[in-house]
Amino acid sequence: LKLPLGYRYASTYAGIRKVEKDDLALIVSGSPASAAAVFTTNRVQAGPVRVGKANLAASRGRVSAVLINAGNANCANRTEDRVALESCRLVSEALGVPQAQVIPSSTGVIGVELDVNLIAAALPRLVERLSPDRFEDAAHAIMTTDLTQKVAFSDAFGIRVAGMTKGSGMIQPNMATTLCFVMTDAALSPTVLKGMLKQATARSFNRLSVDGETSTNDTALLLANGAFGKKPGERQAKALQSALNEVMESLAEQIARDGEGAQKLIVIDVLGAATDAAAERIARSIANSLLVKTAVHGSDANWGRILSAAGQSGAVFEPVKVDIDLQGVPVCRSGFGVDFDEPTLKAKLDLKECHIRFRIRGSGKAKTRFWSCDLTKGYIDINASYRT
Amino acid sequence: LKLPLGYRYASTYAGIRKVEKDDLALIVSGSPASAAAVFTTNRVQAGPVRVGKANLAASRGRVSAVLINAGNANCANRTEDRVALESCRLVSEALGVPQAQVIPSSTGVIGVELDVNLIAAALPRLVERLSPDRFEDAAHAIMTTDLTQKVAFSDAFGIRVAGMTKGSGMIQPNMATTLCFVMTDAALSPTVLKGMLKQATARSFNRLSVDGETSTNDTALLLANGAFGKKPGERQAKALQSALNEVMESLAEQIARDGEGAQKLIVIDVLGAATDAAAERIARSIANSLLVKTAVHGSDANWGRILSAAGQSGAVFEPVKVDIDLQGVPVCRSGFGVDFDEPTLKAKLDLKECHIRFRIRGSGKAKTRFWSCDLTKGYIDINASYRT
Repeated sequence: LKLPLGYRYASTYAGIRKVEKDDLALIVSGSPASAAAVFTTNRVQAGPVRVGKANLAASRGRVSAVLINAGNANCANRTEDRVALESCRLVSEALGVPQAQVIPSSTGVIGVELDVNLIAAALPRLVERLSPDRFEDAAHAIMTTDLTQKVAFSDAFGIRVAGMTKGSGMIQPNMATTLCFVMTDAALSPTVLKGMLKQATARSFNRLSVDGETSTNDTALLLANGAFGKKPGERQAKALQSALNEVMESLAEQIARDGEGAQKLIVIDVLGAATDAAAERIARSIANSLLVKTAVHGSDANWGRILSAAGQSGAVFEPVKVDIDLQGVPVCRSGFGVDFDEPTLKAKLDLKECHIRFRIRGSGKAKTRFWSCDLTKGYIDINASYRT
Repeated sequence: LKLPLGYRYASTYAGIRKVEKDDLALIVSGSPASAAAVFTTNRVQAGPVRVGKANLAASRGRVSAVLINAGNANCANRTEDRVALESCRLVSEALGVPQAQVIPSSTGVIGVELDVNLIAAALPRLVERLSPDRFEDAAHAIMTTDLTQKVAFSDAFGIRVAGMTKGSGMIQPNMATTLCFVMTDAALSPTVLKGMLKQATARSFNRLSVDGETSTNDTALLLANGAFGKKPGERQAKALQSALNEVMESLAEQIARDGEGAQKLIVIDVLGAATDAAAERIARSIANSLLVKTAVHGSDANWGRILSAAGQSGAVFEPVKVDIDLQGVPVCRSGFGVDFDEPTLKAKLDLKECHIRFRIRGSGKAKTRFWSCDLTKGYIDINASYRT
């Protein structure tokens, strides 16, 4: 078992989503865990995001429990803050932990009131079910339109890291993420944790887009309860950062792979950009281009769209210095098309993963990796009737 | 007939596009016209864009002829500038006008060489066909995936304005436009013309998105040949600006209505923003939101997505001051949902036009109108196999 020590998990169906599928999850740390979080940059923020921020501030970065529901974002309705606060109070009472050490988190439709009575009724059941091995149940309960459950594990010198996340639409976390909860049993202060989460987020969830939409509820929360024992030394801390990066990068990739309607994962590597910001802009623009996403869907080696998407990113680069490879096959050199065997490349593009390599020669050393997915009719099916 | 005096038009099939449908158009002014143009802001610019800019500079804003081809963007290939220059030389020779007074313009696939011999072979036929009444033939020849021809006419004190444009994918003109050619017989200097075009573009093509893609070939060209006679006075100039705005707004709306795969036009009005820039950012973000576009497609009154799209625009506003109307029906007041009759609104959303009104109360007076379209499976059909 790779699960961090000292955590318990549970899930149940509270009746928040229409279909009878678990929609309420609880994560509890045996002792108050150090915590760090990043939240959505959307100007419209859900009640649970506001309450979560306030609680983290009030508890000085200590968290004992996280209550997560799917099926309702608890956003843009008259009772959002009240319901989020009341949920925390209920959990606090049921577990005997300070209210400020409870983080509420919601995902689902925007603009509909969340009935706190459903949570109150489900909570005793939830608490009763708490168990160290129900990690995957919790991961399952936070899913919305996800087809697959998204979890990742790693470790460093015996310290364990386990993460869960959900997709799969309204995904372009910007300085934040969709819902993501990562637990470790390392002993670390909230301040150290914050730096670690920031680094891991920058290279994972902030390099991910399914549909260019930054949600009102994006939250990534990292807990470290110290159950492993002594504080990590310098070497251990470095290895732990790598483990955390690995977990969050895996989760980000899993979200892209299971993007709404997606049939293909798109991995974009940008190399040789003048600055980190330029690399990121180019990668994000390619990742969000509907024309690139549909071309990949159709296994069409339309590299001109990749070049055009980079060109509209706002990043400064010389088009005549650009080399593009698709699935390892050179399709553009120095900004111009090169001959390639169309049927061979088409067959490679039919695979479930599409790799785009965008390299600028002689410009700089900045590089980044970005995850996206193809755009299919499935996305339209899902989103033309999401609410009704 | 509403056509401006002193222009002739022609079109033919030169064999540039695969299907036998006119792909080469020529617009000729009897005397050198004053000209103003705006071009794409994409970092990757096609050969004809570069040559067009250079020619306008060399001729000090005088244009005698415009040669436009569809089926090939003449972009990101080894011969793009040479072919664009040679096309101008051929037209210059055939018409006996200075080469710098010829503007080349291309639309179609990126990254493929354009065979100038096809243009050389078609040019005599094209010149022979030149006629004052072949305006619509030319408008027809510049179409790519357009289903409908896009033309608009207006007049002011007898001065005529006629415009043509093409859609219908890779459309988010940014400080520029897709291909758009507007002719008037007013007598105006290139400098005055530039100001007029800038104003008209700002409120038309720069308020338009089909798929958030700024093309490598975007060009809007305004010609004024003075064939009407005397210079317009102040009142006439003002009326002419209105006529130009009207023509370009109509063309922009036509592009959105015929966006690739589109079944519905989306008209977005943002009111009460703090600044013009904020109004534009909010409108553009709503216009480009895949979740808004798919919800409109499915006639789903999912106003939470509209609020979220505005929230991720980067514009500063208070969510609790936002009112949203869909098809004139209030769905959100002060940032919260209000009751509405679901079947009635659904029936209204089934119409071919969807009107979104996003108003911020007590914040400012800035407003803007933006055009977009729904996202359908047709867009994916078209773009999954555009090149092959």
